[in-house]
Amino acid sequence: GLVLVKNPHLDLMEEDVLYHLDLGTKTHNLPAMFGDIKFVCVGGSPNRMRAFAQFMRRELGLAAAGEDVPDICAGSDRYAMYRAGPVLSISHGMGIPSISIMLHELIKLLHHAKCRDVTIIRIGTSGGLGIEAGSVVITDTAVDSSFQPRFEQVVLDDVVVRSTELDKDLAEELLACSRDIPDFPTLIGHTMCTYDFYEGQGRLDGALCSFSSEKKLEYLRRAYDAGVRNIEMESTAFAALCGLCGLKGESCHFHLL
Amino acid sequence: GLVLVKNPHLDLMEEDVLYHLDLGTKTHNLPAMFGDIKFVCVGGSPNRMRAFAQFMRRELGLAAAGEDVPDICAGSDRYAMYRAGPVLSISHGMGIPSISIMLHELIKLLHHAKCRDVTIIRIGTSGGLGIEAGSVVITDTAVDSSFQPRFEQVVLDDVVVRSTELDKDLAEELLACSRDIPDFPTLIGHTMCTYDFYEGQGRLDGALCSFSSEKKLEYLRRAYDAGVRNIEMESTAFAALCGLCGLKGESCHFHLL
Repeated sequence: GLVLVKNPHLDLMEEDVLYHLDLGTKTHNLPAMFGDIKFVCVGGSPNRMRAFAQFMRRELGLAAAGEDVPDICAGSDRYAMYRAGPVLSISHGMGIPSISIMLHELIKLLHHAKCRDVTIIRIGTSGGLGIEAGSVVITDTAVDSSFQPRFEQVVLDDVVVRSTELDKDLAEELLACSRDIPDFPTLIGHTMCTYDFYEGQGRLDGALCSFSSEKKLEYLRRAYDAGVRNIEMESTAFAALCGLCGLKGESCHFHLL
Repeated sequence: GLVLVKNPHLDLMEEDVLYHLDLGTKTHNLPAMFGDIKFVCVGGSPNRMRAFAQFMRRELGLAAAGEDVPDICAGSDRYAMYRAGPVLSISHGMGIPSISIMLHELIKLLHHAKCRDVTIIRIGTSGGLGIEAGSVVITDTAVDSSFQPRFEQVVLDDVVVRSTELDKDLAEELLACSRDIPDFPTLIGHTMCTYDFYEGQGRLDGALCSFSSEKKLEYLRRAYDAGVRNIEMESTAFAALCGLCGLKGESCHFHLL
């Protein structure tokens, strides 16, 4: 149940500085700080991830309402990290490059801290496709803009294709949880991940828009027919990295509008 | 000298909500707030962009040292925006998807505000290649991980290739400015833009590393021979979007380590 780091160079390093988290193996006792972490929840917005940590602390009986929760990464303004008992709540910014930096450093953090059996869940917002506003989509498979279950990672100048499968049992478990809550529309479906918010997701209100409404609709219809139920900007990289490093991962998105 | 918006749908919209900036055409008087803006400086970190705005306000004689500068986008935690006279200072987070969202909304903001003759400069950090630590690289051309001067934008499921040329006169002007400052090593060179910080830039300290030190060195040597002097994560998208929308753009990077 240990988190896997697939980098032979890492053991040879005297110190590992998790630069964007403002943490490190020489400056912090990572096993003492994080060794008992069992869940990591990540999302784009730092304010939301603070609110989630505050909510979790109340749910777990660890704090009174309104009590402040300190940002563990306060020395960096790249990401924010909060703790609620065995749960870490971390922001990752917007897009694959931003979440990838955070995940590399988080995975190394969990490795250095000798954490076991960690579950990671992305709890972000997304645009829904043919579903009710306010629905939650639990991702079975993250797909790219061609609806394929793959993440193309550029390593130096090579393209490496990685699988984007998520934990099916965890998805079913989360779906079962949602059934205990009244009026909480939840479904399992494919999540499409794009590199661009405006042109990549067929929005007609960007600074540039070179496609017609018809072409947009035809594309979104094809996406729906391929099983896509929502669109966001991080899920393929999240699924690929968590999968490779032995983190049990799932991705749940709230369809905002 | 007006900023160009290339989207026929925009004029038909009753309201334009610049969601990630927490601004809009119905909620804010954009011409009154921003009509006199002549320079926009952008960088990844919100704290650094606030410090830059404070510095600019002192330089322009608009504020005393230590005086606070309000975040114009305080209602959103996606980006931070500060003003110093005719200069806007905006954070864009890390990576192409994140800077693209900001630029789409910034370009529409400048368009709605009827700004004229706006110059935009990215002032970020980067990793240098065969140059002295502390140097500033002024980008003549942004290149991708194959050292090509292009940005591949995915529009729905089509790939559109865009030019990444920046303003050569502005680059020379900035280089001339640097010469007035003693001990300020500055050069003009190509800037390579990657989608990934760890595996994409050949770092040996990520959670995954599937290449050898030799392969990394061989790649970086090829990059140097192709004229690359620094590596970061936003320049190709920045150059492509600014170029298409008639913003005179330049990209200057401080080589941190």
